[in-house]
Amino acid sequence: MSDTGRSAAIAASAAGASYRTLEARFRDLGHLGHAQAMLGWDEAVMMPAGGGEARGQALATLAALAHEKLAAAETGDLIAASAAGATALSPAQQLNLREMTRQWRDATALPADLVRARQLAVTRCEQVWRQARGANDWQGVQGSLGEVLARVREAADCLHALDLAQGLPSTPYDALLSRNQPGITAKEIDQIFGSLQVFLPEFLERVRTRQPRCLPLPSGFPVPRQKALGEHLMGLLGFDFARGRLDVSHHPFSGGVPDDTRITTRYADDSFLPAQLAVLHETGHGLYQQGLPQAWRGQPLGEDAGIAVHESQSLLIEMQVARSKPFLSHVAPIVQEMLVGAVLPDAKWSGDNLYLNATRVQPGYIRVDADEVTYPLHVILRFDLERRLLDGSLALADLPAAWDEAMRSFLGLSTGNNHRDGCMQDVHWFAGVFAYFPCYTLGALMAAQLFAAARRALPDVETRIGRGDLAPLRDWLRANVHVHGRALPMQDLLLAATGERLDARHYFEHLQRRYLRQAW
Amino acid sequence: MSDTGRSAAIAASAAGASYRTLEARFRDLGHLGHAQAMLGWDEAVMMPAGGGEARGQALATLAALAHEKLAAAETGDLIAASAAGATALSPAQQLNLREMTRQWRDATALPADLVRARQLAVTRCEQVWRQARGANDWQGVQGSLGEVLARVREAADCLHALDLAQGLPSTPYDALLSRNQPGITAKEIDQIFGSLQVFLPEFLERVRTRQPRCLPLPSGFPVPRQKALGEHLMGLLGFDFARGRLDVSHHPFSGGVPDDTRITTRYADDSFLPAQLAVLHETGHGLYQQGLPQAWRGQPLGEDAGIAVHESQSLLIEMQVARSKPFLSHVAPIVQEMLVGAVLPDAKWSGDNLYLNATRVQPGYIRVDADEVTYPLHVILRFDLERRLLDGSLALADLPAAWDEAMRSFLGLSTGNNHRDGCMQDVHWFAGVFAYFPCYTLGALMAAQLFAAARRALPDVETRIGRGDLAPLRDWLRANVHVHGRALPMQDLLLAATGERLDARHYFEHLQRRYLRQAW
Repeated sequence: MSDTGRSAAIAASAAGASYRTLEARFRDLGHLGHAQAMLGWDEAVMMPAGGGEARGQALATLAALAHEKLAAAETGDLIAASAAGATALSPAQQLNLREMTRQWRDATALPADLVRARQLAVTRCEQVWRQARGANDWQGVQGSLGEVLARVREAADCLHALDLAQGLPSTPYDALLSRNQPGITAKEIDQIFGSLQVFLPEFLERVRTRQPRCLPLPSGFPVPRQKALGEHLMGLLGFDFARGRLDVSHHPFSGGVPDDTRITTRYADDSFLPAQLAVLHETGHGLYQQGLPQAWRGQPLGEDAGIAVHESQSLLIEMQVARSKPFLSHVAPIVQEMLVGAVLPDAKWSGDNLYLNATRVQPGYIRVDADEVTYPLHVILRFDLERRLLDGSLALADLPAAWDEAMRSFLGLSTGNNHRDGCMQDVHWFAGVFAYFPCYTLGALMAAQLFAAARRALPDVETRIGRGDLAPLRDWLRANVHVHGRALPMQDLLLAATGERLDARHYFEHLQRRYLRQAW
Repeated sequence: MSDTGRSAAIAASAAGASYRTLEARFRDLGHLGHAQAMLGWDEAVMMPAGGGEARGQALATLAALAHEKLAAAETGDLIAASAAGATALSPAQQLNLREMTRQWRDATALPADLVRARQLAVTRCEQVWRQARGANDWQGVQGSLGEVLARVREAADCLHALDLAQGLPSTPYDALLSRNQPGITAKEIDQIFGSLQVFLPEFLERVRTRQPRCLPLPSGFPVPRQKALGEHLMGLLGFDFARGRLDVSHHPFSGGVPDDTRITTRYADDSFLPAQLAVLHETGHGLYQQGLPQAWRGQPLGEDAGIAVHESQSLLIEMQVARSKPFLSHVAPIVQEMLVGAVLPDAKWSGDNLYLNATRVQPGYIRVDADEVTYPLHVILRFDLERRLLDGSLALADLPAAWDEAMRSFLGLSTGNNHRDGCMQDVHWFAGVFAYFPCYTLGALMAAQLFAAARRALPDVETRIGRGDLAPLRDWLRANVHVHGRALPMQDLLLAATGERLDARHYFEHLQRRYLRQAW
């Protein structure tokens, strides 16, 4: 072996050792993340109110410890040493190193004090919000939200400075957005949302005028029956109950870790449908999480590809599958059997009537209850307001009025002083989550595009769904989306799975197919 | 100020600063403990089986991180600096420093690799045990238990070496015991248990020959009713539901943190009594935890005074209060109302019949279901076997046979191959918990002694209990036990609360009063 060859081999072997140490370090970080995920789930699902202060402190310490370990000089040294001999790493290891580097760089950009202060502010505000929302008490939560917003702004400024130093064109909002969903900017979203704002209002008018009548669904079913139905539907979709569970929380969410996926819903007495659709939505998230690459558990490469991609998986299940006629025709007798206790001929319980109820278009106040035609308008409203909150052009005190104005303009509805169903309805901002809402609609567009590709690849997929056989679709999603983890950026993932970059056309076609032609 | 005075003041001020940094460090350690407590609760109560591997890894990392932070040289430096100017600290701060020093010294005695390996072995073994116990599969769990035992032995040896270096007379077993309950040795326990072994067998014979008949209690009540009853009884005892909750687990336990106390039970179809007695027992633990000194939350001084003291609180509630005639007479109509739905005259539901059922003496296989006369024999059996397991004089493979032999000798019962109700019945050893069982009986003795003191201090306490008014007793316990946290060693705590050191006489008097004179 030549001297050059030998020193290259030594460098490669040193890099290999550094890389392995780095993996162990990120494995420990993953374990802290496991603790954070589970304590977060517990806080929302199990924790008595009096435990809130201690929980907030504990979560802040965990966030600070994770940040300290990630931002440590030692992490940077190991990254540099691994990168120096990266050619000795496998392609997947190189991708993992890329993700590690991103996370480390972001962590070094955020002061430890800020990380702890933000976590503390967020846990406190979320707890205040939970009480205040019930009481429609905007004044009671505005101060806590102001504290959160201040910390979020500081973080956005730090990440923005990092992006600029790396030569990335960015705004503070983009800095947050790219951490939620890498590979998309607010400017690109403006273009996409612009096309929605052209298409949707007119489309909404057309749909509303030709909407068929539907019979109201029966109500008043006991929670245990509703829960059993939810679990049955989860099973139908392939949710693995050995690695997850369904519970109740204030706001439906999907949490936990890949091998212990916790989803939640909330049951109502007056209608069973929203709870079940929430279960189906969160099951889409859960299937993605459970399907992430086993070989990369606990490593950055094994994480999901971003919030919009995550939403594409929940919305593909909820919007493309669960609200479709084949699926609802299949489950109609199951739903009746499990809620009523018997299957008797009854037009109210027919698949057609379930379908008409599940695809009813009706502007309303609440985003999570919105139909898929008006849903993007809820998102565009939030996208606009949160950018203005973040850059300071909208004062927090003026948020309720700005919300009311936007609701009138977009949906013809006034929220007035009903803050509970207005700017207090979503937990996101109160939990410090900004630059997240647009991911819902990006996810909806992606879901339409992915489902169109699945139909091309599996011509009988809708027939199979109509027989309650979700396996082909689930396998296709697993192979084309889930298994990639974080390896492919959003647009590359779409290109690989569908043959094209994000295109709103599939969403428009989906809406036209469902709401105008009523094909299914 | 003289030069000497000035330098003393400077040292004191430096010590004050070091001490405050030390408190912040222990606060962070408390937060890691919060995460460990909650993930442990979740593992036993909520977690799907498939989440076990990831949970075990996460708990091992948390244990390693906590150990690393506690054993760090920096902690030692801060302790030394604080101790140098300890005179400037308040008496309580000095006690807190004493406890910090103990914890730090113990941590430095244990290698980090051992801490992680022990935690991993324990979480795995507990999960294996959960399956294997159901299947009565001793072979299936013996290997995992061997791994746990090896790690526990290593830890005992490390702590024993530390004790010897500090001039403390000790054995490896004592080293573990003193970490569970400071202030008592195996030799002292031998003496106490010796007096029980003289008293109990003859007493048991006398009780069994004069035991009045009781009517079997009705059974088959739905779990939600049993749970509502449990929560009602918890409320009666003063459990604060804003800071805690009741759930179901395989083995009843009390966990969580002072402001979020989680207790569990398990319900049966064939009898409601064991589940309720477990609730009452765990509520005793919960009251202690919730009553720990608020000003010392998250600091070592704010922790409980040891396992035996903790057990004294659960057993005082369960044995002294809940199985007493005044308490059962008060709750009898409540129990009937909540389980049956109506209060009708029925001898089966009378307070007397509940009392006779709750004080039935009958040798049996299961420790947690044992009456208070035979219970100590279950403990003495385990105390003997675990000492032999630890010093290697009993091979793990021979445990089932040794168990069977001891059961025949102590209780006249043979377990044979029924390992599930033999050496596999308790989670303790499988969870790495050794030198813990004797604390149950020490706690029972302490409970009798404390309750006798409470009766002296509050002459009408039993009358009040008979009216469902538990407040005087709870306040007495809070003021004389709970509020001290870890400030007083066990014997000093007893001396302060009862005027004497631990004395088994009160337990014997309690048994004679209840089981021979049938006074109440």
